[in-house]
Amino acid sequence: MLHILFLFSLLLLSSSPSTSNALDFCVADLSAAEGPAGFPCKAAANVTADDFVFTGIAKAGNTTNIISAAVSPAFVGQFPGLNGLGISIARLDLAPGGVIPIHTHPAASELLVVTHGHLLAGFISSSSNKVYIKKVNKGEIMIFPQGLLHFQINAGKNAATAFVSFGSPNPGLQILDFALFANDFPSKLVETVTFLDDAQVKKLKGVLGGTG
Amino acid sequence: MLHILFLFSLLLLSSSPSTSNALDFCVADLSAAEGPAGFPCKAAANVTADDFVFTGIAKAGNTTNIISAAVSPAFVGQFPGLNGLGISIARLDLAPGGVIPIHTHPAASELLVVTHGHLLAGFISSSSNKVYIKKVNKGEIMIFPQGLLHFQINAGKNAATAFVSFGSPNPGLQILDFALFANDFPSKLVETVTFLDDAQVKKLKGVLGGTG
Amino acid sequence: MLHILFLFSLLLLSSSPSTSNALDFCVADLSAAEGPAGFPCKAAANVTADDFVFTGIAKAGNTTNIISAAVSPAFVGQFPGLNGLGISIARLDLAPGGVIPIHTHPAASELLVVTHGHLLAGFISSSSNKVYIKKVNKGEIMIFPQGLLHFQINAGKNAATAFVSFGSPNPGLQILDFALFANDFPSKLVETVTFLDDAQVKKLKGVLGGTG
Amino acid sequence: MLHILFLFSLLLLSSSPSTSNALDFCVADLSAAEGPAGFPCKAAANVTADDFVFTGIAKAGNTTNIISAAVSPAFVGQFPGLNGLGISIARLDLAPGGVIPIHTHPAASELLVVTHGHLLAGFISSSSNKVYIKKVNKGEIMIFPQGLLHFQINAGKNAATAFVSFGSPNPGLQILDFALFANDFPSKLVETVTFLDDAQVKKLKGVLGGTG
Amino acid sequence: MLHILFLFSLLLLSSSPSTSNALDFCVADLSAAEGPAGFPCKAAANVTADDFVFTGIAKAGNTTNIISAAVSPAFVGQFPGLNGLGISIARLDLAPGGVIPIHTHPAASELLVVTHGHLLAGFISSSSNKVYIKKVNKGEIMIFPQGLLHFQINAGKNAATAFVSFGSPNPGLQILDFALFANDFPSKLVETVTFLDDAQVKKLKGVLGGTG
Amino acid sequence: MLHILFLFSLLLLSSSPSTSNALDFCVADLSAAEGPAGFPCKAAANVTADDFVFTGIAKAGNTTNIISAAVSPAFVGQFPGLNGLGISIARLDLAPGGVIPIHTHPAASELLVVTHGHLLAGFISSSSNKVYIKKVNKGEIMIFPQGLLHFQINAGKNAATAFVSFGSPNPGLQILDFALFANDFPSKLVETVTFLDDAQVKKLKGVLGGTG
Repeated sequence: MLHILFLFSLLLLSSSPSTSNALDFCVADLSAAEGPAGFPCKAAANVTADDFVFTGIAKAGNTTNIISAAVSPAFVGQFPGLNGLGISIARLDLAPGGVIPIHTHPAASELLVVTHGHLLAGFISSSSNKVYIKKVNKGEIMIFPQGLLHFQINAGKNAATAFVSFGSPNPGLQILDFALFANDFPSKLVETVTFLDDAQVKKLKGVLGGTG
Repeated sequence: MLHILFLFSLLLLSSSPSTSNALDFCVADLSAAEGPAGFPCKAAANVTADDFVFTGIAKAGNTTNIISAAVSPAFVGQFPGLNGLGISIARLDLAPGGVIPIHTHPAASELLVVTHGHLLAGFISSSSNKVYIKKVNKGEIMIFPQGLLHFQINAGKNAATAFVSFGSPNPGLQILDFALFANDFPSKLVETVTFLDDAQVKKLKGVLGGTG
Repeated sequence: MLHILFLFSLLLLSSSPSTSNALDFCVADLSAAEGPAGFPCKAAANVTADDFVFTGIAKAGNTTNIISAAVSPAFVGQFPGLNGLGISIARLDLAPGGVIPIHTHPAASELLVVTHGHLLAGFISSSSNKVYIKKVNKGEIMIFPQGLLHFQINAGKNAATAFVSFGSPNPGLQILDFALFANDFPSKLVETVTFLDDAQVKKLKGVLGGTG
Repeated sequence: MLHILFLFSLLLLSSSPSTSNALDFCVADLSAAEGPAGFPCKAAANVTADDFVFTGIAKAGNTTNIISAAVSPAFVGQFPGLNGLGISIARLDLAPGGVIPIHTHPAASELLVVTHGHLLAGFISSSSNKVYIKKVNKGEIMIFPQGLLHFQINAGKNAATAFVSFGSPNPGLQILDFALFANDFPSKLVETVTFLDDAQVKKLKGVLGGTG
Repeated sequence: MLHILFLFSLLLLSSSPSTSNALDFCVADLSAAEGPAGFPCKAAANVTADDFVFTGIAKAGNTTNIISAAVSPAFVGQFPGLNGLGISIARLDLAPGGVIPIHTHPAASELLVVTHGHLLAGFISSSSNKVYIKKVNKGEIMIFPQGLLHFQINAGKNAATAFVSFGSPNPGLQILDFALFANDFPSKLVETVTFLDDAQVKKLKGVLGGTG
Repeated sequence: MLHILFLFSLLLLSSSPSTSNALDFCVADLSAAEGPAGFPCKAAANVTADDFVFTGIAKAGNTTNIISAAVSPAFVGQFPGLNGLGISIARLDLAPGGVIPIHTHPAASELLVVTHGHLLAGFISSSSNKVYIKKVNKGEIMIFPQGLLHFQINAGKNAATAFVSFGSPNPGLQILDFALFANDFPSKLVETVTFLDDAQVKKLKGVLGGTG
């Protein structure tokens, strides 16, 4: 009997509230205020296996839209089990001719794996402005370094699917056209900081629902 | 002309060797000595788009083996473009009945996405020894927190494939049976630190090529 | 008088709530919900010198048990003053023949110093499965890299004591036998992912109070 | 219409509460309890451009005091917009003969830029006790590595101003004379740990308002 | 004499090569290959006070160019003393009407302080595409969170100067127009991933020296 | 045979040079140039169990000196096996009346455990200048937050020994008196930045071998 007692006393020591939350996992309590490192943890007692599985991107996103493509993220906001664990994922679906417009992820590098079809993908170096472009076939992998402008295009005849992983539970997504044209960023200022012509800015603001 | 000169002078400033390497990417020079943060960078001038794409895991691994499964990593040792970027990936192929034996990744959490078939997967909490097990279907995602024992099994009738991402370019892989039985770890010591019987230890050392 | 005024205004500036908490220390408020970086801080005004001293492991742990050993942690759950400071410690007491069974710390490397007697200790590399084993005498130090399986044994005739430090306030502790046999992990699954025999699994579940 | 719908659905996905707070910024809610990584975030809906601008150090500090100098910090406690962003700043104003007494910043390196006049500045290496001293003219920059004792003096005939940046939102400030003489640190102990004479300690405690 | 011997023996212990380099500072040896954490350190014996002071941005940059502005960085490539210290700085000079075109820093947040004149500055949130714009007067401070598109404009009648600090020795600088138009990024692709018109792309490639 | 082949192919995959070095450990090659993250790794093939054990502080340091105390570090410079593992240790020996003079560790917090006798220890908060002092008995633990001035005194009648751990392989050690008086820091400057009297400065420079 002694040893059983001992074993459980040892278990108790190492399963203090702090140990059980902080060390192994910290499923996000999305109802609490977030901090720089993420969300407070859901009480360990209420955590079940379901907290570690996400089914929300099992189906292809709807690509019947202007870009013939869909981005379906599983970031901490969608998948609280990722909180504090330094990784997340998103699903990309692109119809033939589909495009993920040029964008950045401010907080993480992106690792893409193509699971159906093939993509043409690229990024631009910040230091030399050199463009790195490659065709990525099914089962192949491409890395996009943190914070750099990059894009993916389905140049094939069939639908393409890819999964993109990020070294952060919340990598962010800044799509250039949305940042410039899908808000109230005054056209005059947009033109001043981008050198774009007024007509071009107004045209894209029209398409993307921007004002000003 | 002035502005062109200016623009290129600005480019020059921001494309000093340090900027071009450190900031955007640091493709590993695997021939140089590694350090705690990774490998020294390949000279930026010699970097091409090919350095950012990896084709080595496009084909299924050979599952004709004792575990009817294969693990094909794309870590920095295989894919130097990942150096310093905080992420990596591996491909899992499992024939029906295939098993990825219980193991840990000492340096990163693991994010699994099933791309064909379905898996039964689980991990054990270190603090409470609670076991979290779930069936993960095609397109579904499961997270395995850093450093915890976990496993994947193909309980289905068809082959299964999954990609597992890690929040480190070099997450490591410690397979329990290899650590205990596939080396010269003296049987007597193995038995002392695991409570396993001598016959069990000797049997598995036999299967896995261990000695002592 | 002016300078006194100045000095205290300067003090005020640099002792804003945020400065006093975040910078110097952040004694854990264990009653609040933890986050990925640790616990919220106890109000600085209520912090005393007692918050920075821990007496809970001054006495030897009880080694009258199955492993003839005791592990007494001073992690953030036991010693809130460590919160956010990146370090913790535990005391190991081993009677002659005592064993700290093979285990891992998912979140930190371990630095052991023997203060009485001597130990036989070792760890297994994840990449090569190479076993590193050494006798550690009184006053000697051994390092166990993060996340790797390791153990300590008292092979001497007298009691041994050691202190183990960790580069995290909450390194975690996953004891292999507890993870496999001291819970409701189904025996059939345990056997599938470990290659252990059914009899061996059932026997150890019996010893450690496991079910299924 | 479809594409507009799509675009906004995409926006919604990427603007979940967690994304909008964690990724882009986390303006401190100074009324909430801080944690090791900083303060909880103010609700994104209440954040305005004003949260990202700080006007509190636009005017020179009052240098009519014992050191003929003033330190005006813009740390997270003063400027909540810095929370979680890894940087902060302070303004230094020094009348002729003004001195920023020797001090350390426990949590960050300091980068100084002189904007008016010139300073004599230096730091001491911890490993070799070597002293690095330089005159820093207007527009010149000096780096003070993390945690090392350093100082700034206005040896010129005119007032000097500088801005010092820190690689932390809350670098801290430990001024040697305040740590030793502006509190209730018992004189006997101060003398024991500094080798200073009793008369010297009592004299400076008198000047700085210390007791004991 | 004994104590002197002791003191220097203590100094020796704590001034081993590793201590003197790693701890206090690591002045970059720009001639060696960089790694993910920065450059190897210059031998401590060869380090002087000059290594910690940078005079290269003391003078205003030349603003006689297309943007009537100049960016003068003091990153690790220009100022090796910053290596490994987590901070850097750049000087901005803007003539009346001058513009720092919209850009990102992939690796760090930016803290701006205006030292002459005033600027109109702003950034765009990645999650909500909300634009945060403010006039920043002399002595005022503005923070631009990591990786987000931002800009600065001199809307005043006089020249303006600002210093921008970064929480990284090598924050990078990706200027949108250079990334899209100052390289060989094929116009057709640029148009596909930005929705810009062919004429607009060709026009700006002409201005910025781009091809393809 | 197949499974053996498989198992070793799997081993090969996960034991590429990068995996074996970077992941598990990176024993310092002290003959190579250090970088911000530490030293390059010794080739894994040449690493033995001896690399992970340090015997250099098993014996008490010589306390026959001015402070009746000795500090014996096991930092990465003395114990290369710690490289990159985020932890280190030092031994403190204090004769009756012995003193570890007030000092800081710029890069890490310190965790002290007393193994013989008892100590009087304390640190000063940087934000409030509050002094936290406690008697620490045998087996008790005290934490000293990163970068703060602290000290240890043996106020007992017998010798005392303690081990201090640090959350860095190279925490540094800046002893106040050495920084001010054991170098060529000009006395006039020392007096200006410390408010100490000329006689006091000259006296201590005499004791500690300082010049200027």
